[in-house]
Amino acid sequence: MMKVDLNCDIGESFGAYSLGNDEELLSHVTSANIACGFHAGDPSTMRKTVRMALKKNVAIGAHPGLKDLEGFGRREMQISPQEAHDLVTYQIGALYAFVKSEGACLQHVKPHGALYNMAARDANLAEAIAKSVYKIDPGLILLGLANSELIKAGTRLGLRTANEAFADRTYQEDGSLTSRKTPNSVLEDDKKAVKQVMDMLRKNEVISIQGTPVPITAESICLHGDGAKAAAFARQIRHSLELAEVRVEKLGSFV
Amino acid sequence: MMKVDLNCDIGESFGAYSLGNDEELLSHVTSANIACGFHAGDPSTMRKTVRMALKKNVAIGAHPGLKDLEGFGRREMQISPQEAHDLVTYQIGALYAFVKSEGACLQHVKPHGALYNMAARDANLAEAIAKSVYKIDPGLILLGLANSELIKAGTRLGLRTANEAFADRTYQEDGSLTSRKTPNSVLEDDKKAVKQVMDMLRKNEVISIQGTPVPITAESICLHGDGAKAAAFARQIRHSLELAEVRVEKLGSFV
Amino acid sequence: MMKVDLNCDIGESFGAYSLGNDEELLSHVTSANIACGFHAGDPSTMRKTVRMALKKNVAIGAHPGLKDLEGFGRREMQISPQEAHDLVTYQIGALYAFVKSEGACLQHVKPHGALYNMAARDANLAEAIAKSVYKIDPGLILLGLANSELIKAGTRLGLRTANEAFADRTYQEDGSLTSRKTPNSVLEDDKKAVKQVMDMLRKNEVISIQGTPVPITAESICLHGDGAKAAAFARQIRHSLELAEVRVEKLGSFV
Amino acid sequence: MMKVDLNCDIGESFGAYSLGNDEELLSHVTSANIACGFHAGDPSTMRKTVRMALKKNVAIGAHPGLKDLEGFGRREMQISPQEAHDLVTYQIGALYAFVKSEGACLQHVKPHGALYNMAARDANLAEAIAKSVYKIDPGLILLGLANSELIKAGTRLGLRTANEAFADRTYQEDGSLTSRKTPNSVLEDDKKAVKQVMDMLRKNEVISIQGTPVPITAESICLHGDGAKAAAFARQIRHSLELAEVRVEKLGSFV
Repeated sequence: MMKVDLNCDIGESFGAYSLGNDEELLSHVTSANIACGFHAGDPSTMRKTVRMALKKNVAIGAHPGLKDLEGFGRREMQISPQEAHDLVTYQIGALYAFVKSEGACLQHVKPHGALYNMAARDANLAEAIAKSVYKIDPGLILLGLANSELIKAGTRLGLRTANEAFADRTYQEDGSLTSRKTPNSVLEDDKKAVKQVMDMLRKNEVISIQGTPVPITAESICLHGDGAKAAAFARQIRHSLELAEVRVEKLGSFV
Repeated sequence: MMKVDLNCDIGESFGAYSLGNDEELLSHVTSANIACGFHAGDPSTMRKTVRMALKKNVAIGAHPGLKDLEGFGRREMQISPQEAHDLVTYQIGALYAFVKSEGACLQHVKPHGALYNMAARDANLAEAIAKSVYKIDPGLILLGLANSELIKAGTRLGLRTANEAFADRTYQEDGSLTSRKTPNSVLEDDKKAVKQVMDMLRKNEVISIQGTPVPITAESICLHGDGAKAAAFARQIRHSLELAEVRVEKLGSFV
Repeated sequence: MMKVDLNCDIGESFGAYSLGNDEELLSHVTSANIACGFHAGDPSTMRKTVRMALKKNVAIGAHPGLKDLEGFGRREMQISPQEAHDLVTYQIGALYAFVKSEGACLQHVKPHGALYNMAARDANLAEAIAKSVYKIDPGLILLGLANSELIKAGTRLGLRTANEAFADRTYQEDGSLTSRKTPNSVLEDDKKAVKQVMDMLRKNEVISIQGTPVPITAESICLHGDGAKAAAFARQIRHSLELAEVRVEKLGSFV
Repeated sequence: MMKVDLNCDIGESFGAYSLGNDEELLSHVTSANIACGFHAGDPSTMRKTVRMALKKNVAIGAHPGLKDLEGFGRREMQISPQEAHDLVTYQIGALYAFVKSEGACLQHVKPHGALYNMAARDANLAEAIAKSVYKIDPGLILLGLANSELIKAGTRLGLRTANEAFADRTYQEDGSLTSRKTPNSVLEDDKKAVKQVMDMLRKNEVISIQGTPVPITAESICLHGDGAKAAAFARQIRHSLELAEVRVEKLGSFV
């Protein structure tokens, strides 16, 4: 039987600023990536978000980002592998404390935004991040772009890794995501998005924007938390997966 | 045989900004309070400082402060007990990750600056901080101003606590420290400072600035890290304690 | 003929975080207080907000706050008068540059949140803030709580000042606002709020929560920008004022 | 008679963190670039630094940087031209307020660190920065790397520009600076540095690290403020220039 995890980014509010519809989304996913205070989130938001995820029986991951609140961690910064290692360690620890305070466990780590993209293509940065995770706890799962340098670095170190795929983002023939700056980067049609996911799970491939099949292993599907349709789409994709007899489960139970 | 711990604040550099003489100080103390990125410190500084402390066989404590880098955490802020709880949890976790990455343990937690002072006199804030520490790890030691609300809150919760006393700060007859804003808040004469420590250890009292004896239990003596004379004074006080056959030991071994 | 200014706080978004309904509110007020990046706002938000205000022919004021984005500038901090002076100077300048870039002028300065409250009751802080404004441009209007230390300090220095009153906040018999932490701090009934404003304008008094009349000069009425009803209330109060033949005009034209 | 300006970066302290030897350096330069709070500096440091520069009769420039205090503005960030425009406008304004408070004038603007480098090679970013400066005050001088895109953009807009050259940095044959990450990026020998400056002034050329002459116009020489030898080197280069009958003057008097 096919298994897959559904993940989303949550806990992205900050102080008086509210973002996303966390509670609704948590009803549909199995794993949640919680912002750790650098690109979004703050200590109080982290505490509340951890509790909400536990209440909904959703597995918790740390979602470390670049220290760029103003840019929401989406602007690439020229940081050294050592700096990447250190800022990831810091943020995992910060979230870990809230999780441990609730008597729970951290399941995974997924870098955010620009850090995610940089770690997908830069082997040195990827290795530094994987080492940070491993040194804190070799039992943590490293979640990253399918086939990326980050997944390779995690595998080399002996970490459990999880290949992430996107329901509503299009792919290039080299397996990378189409940049959000170009048109056609997002599948607006929900049916096409569901079909893309089913292809990934059944055939282990995705059709690139160039029309070629690209091999992909989808262990976790990323659901976006922003946008008006986010929760509705999450509900729909989960429903479609269940209809197709795909088991939607937390990463930790099968990778 | 009398025992006492010597502690100092370290890891207070930030980015390109260097502060303190950490390496030298670490040769004289038994416990170090490492800044956690809010009032001072950054992820890379934390990593380096943790390693340095371990190399020198000095026990490590988290030193969480208010989120006020510009004010070095010394300006009081009107935060709620819940906010205090959350920012302490966040910072302990962040430091814990660096300590765990090195295969080591966290010994204690000591709030910094304005947070230290506020927690000394505000029972609600004190309780929130003590709870944060307890929930992360009930084996952690809570280090705070001798006889303060923070120590009382820790004791009530069942945490191990350590009463901190100051070698070179003067005391008021109610047991509080003389404000740094008033003259005579600091003992400039090293001999007087050493004598003050010896009185604390032998008689469990300190002579207040009003001339009255104030009962005090000094389990850890705070050595300041800034100022030209910091390291020299640290060396001298340690030497004096050893001459007086006081055992200078890490907090964890005797409280 | 009676004249009054209507002001509101705008430009409080930050990066990916959106706050308030600025465009709608700008249709109803005559003066806008634009956040300057410390408690809210960022350079791009400031540029856009300045342009929007100019387009709507609303006079622009700087709205400097404490450097506490996480607390939205609402948590009091123990800063010195000199620090207050400097952070106000910095923020006025930052906004001024955007205003000057558009070939426009700055009309006034109104401190935000905790800084506003602190400046209302602390004469030294008030004087430091008023001096900051005066030294940058003695033609600026200082907008603050009616009868506050800030207004007194501005008057002493020779600045034009404007007494601010609140439509929907209740007053204590000493003329201060009822703390938001206590019940009855806000008038939920719009009709009562309109009546409170009309009393202020016609009789130069407000009925305190204790039932006593308190003398008050209302040169500018603060309209809140948050909350679902904000824009509707703004429309209503403006309409009521116009019906009562009160001229709603920019501060700069009559104080 | 040959004329040249000597500039240095100052005001880079932050809160409790002190950096550089500003007072000493100000005795040797004619123009000072003052940090504006993003990569370094804070409101109080800005106020003190402006006063110090005026006292020493040194012309003042704004030194805006990326919002990256932890990286001292030296890490490149992927910002849009519009973001660059806005952050430069914000910072110029902030410094301008302190200068205006003292009744003085701003002479120039020089981007800092990574922003300086990005603006030297990216025409769109350069144009956005030049426009920001022009819109605030078309009388400001734009100081940037000799022959860079920033200088070209300023010239196109009709701003006065000043070509900056480095005494102690080596050049590539395309006129760019040798990256600090490679060896030989810095001339350690003071005599060589003085000779490089004299060649720039007399022959309008510099010998690249590849041995080829590169045409260069040096209107302002950058003196570094950090490092133990900074002040001594500043003194020496000024002395050498005066011996060679080069007039060392503020930019504003001759560009």
